[in-house]
Amino acid sequence: MGVRKATCYNGAMKELYLEDFKVGQRFISETRRIDSDQIKAFAQQFDPQPFHLDEAAAQASFFQGLAASGWHTAALTMRLLVEGELSVAGGIVGAGADEFRWPRPVRPGDTLTVRSEVLEVRPSKSRPEQGLVKVRSTTLNQKGEPVQIFVANLVVPRRPAPGAS
Amino acid sequence: MGVRKATCYNGAMKELYLEDFKVGQRFISETRRIDSDQIKAFAQQFDPQPFHLDEAAAQASFFQGLAASGWHTAALTMRLLVEGELSVAGGIVGAGADEFRWPRPVRPGDTLTVRSEVLEVRPSKSRPEQGLVKVRSTTLNQKGEPVQIFVANLVVPRRPAPGAS
Repeated sequence: MGVRKATCYNGAMKELYLEDFKVGQRFISETRRIDSDQIKAFAQQFDPQPFHLDEAAAQASFFQGLAASGWHTAALTMRLLVEGELSVAGGIVGAGADEFRWPRPVRPGDTLTVRSEVLEVRPSKSRPEQGLVKVRSTTLNQKGEPVQIFVANLVVPRRPAPGAS
Repeated sequence: MGVRKATCYNGAMKELYLEDFKVGQRFISETRRIDSDQIKAFAQQFDPQPFHLDEAAAQASFFQGLAASGWHTAALTMRLLVEGELSVAGGIVGAGADEFRWPRPVRPGDTLTVRSEVLEVRPSKSRPEQGLVKVRSTTLNQKGEPVQIFVANLVVPRRPAPGAS
């Protein structure tokens, strides 16, 4: 499953360097459906709380029904980003987030897609070979409702000078 | 694996309500070791980039060696929180984060632990039955170095009045 990106990483696909990013640029991902078995399997491993594991317990909880762990939503969002148009040279490397919210739960059967927008492009003062690109990635369900909003600072290399190794 | 928390959720263990939280309170988790097979398995599923999948490719990358996906670190941190002392009534439910950073990579063989501190306790104006507790959770490796800093806003119920259902 990592082959496509590995190919990209090795230079066979167009890769985006710092110089290729502009404020207002938009990227879109493919879609992915999430089902209750996946929600429960992820929760068993990483977030074993009743509202992520069991329909009846979830019904009586804050979520009023089975809901994916927010970390599952985050991980699926990453998968969609890695497979999507945001093909950063050297890979998608995040230093952290300025904003990170889950405005509503992800439910079994939801189909997710990620829309990203470049908010800021900033060369690094201390490391001239790279810069930071601030990107807002909004994960939407099939109704177009945001389920995750994540403003990340990506570490992006500058394009190497011609002839440089 | 969810049994312990489910027991807790059903009231057999001490659960923390909004009234039980105070600024400056600290909580600590157990520890968990992460190995290269786990790093690669998570990456295959959610973050298939070469520096999370393959030692040689990782050596040549920004990370200069195999590194866990930040989402893997986040998911393991959640597991440690769910199993740890921060036993919120109704479960650990995050509305989002004020701060979220990965100051350094997680490497194969690292042993992680999570230290949490309460930064703010705030009753909800619109929903009198609950409030928000702001908690900084710092994930440390075995050298005591932070690998993730996450300031979350948790939704926490107020203690029900005696006799209330």
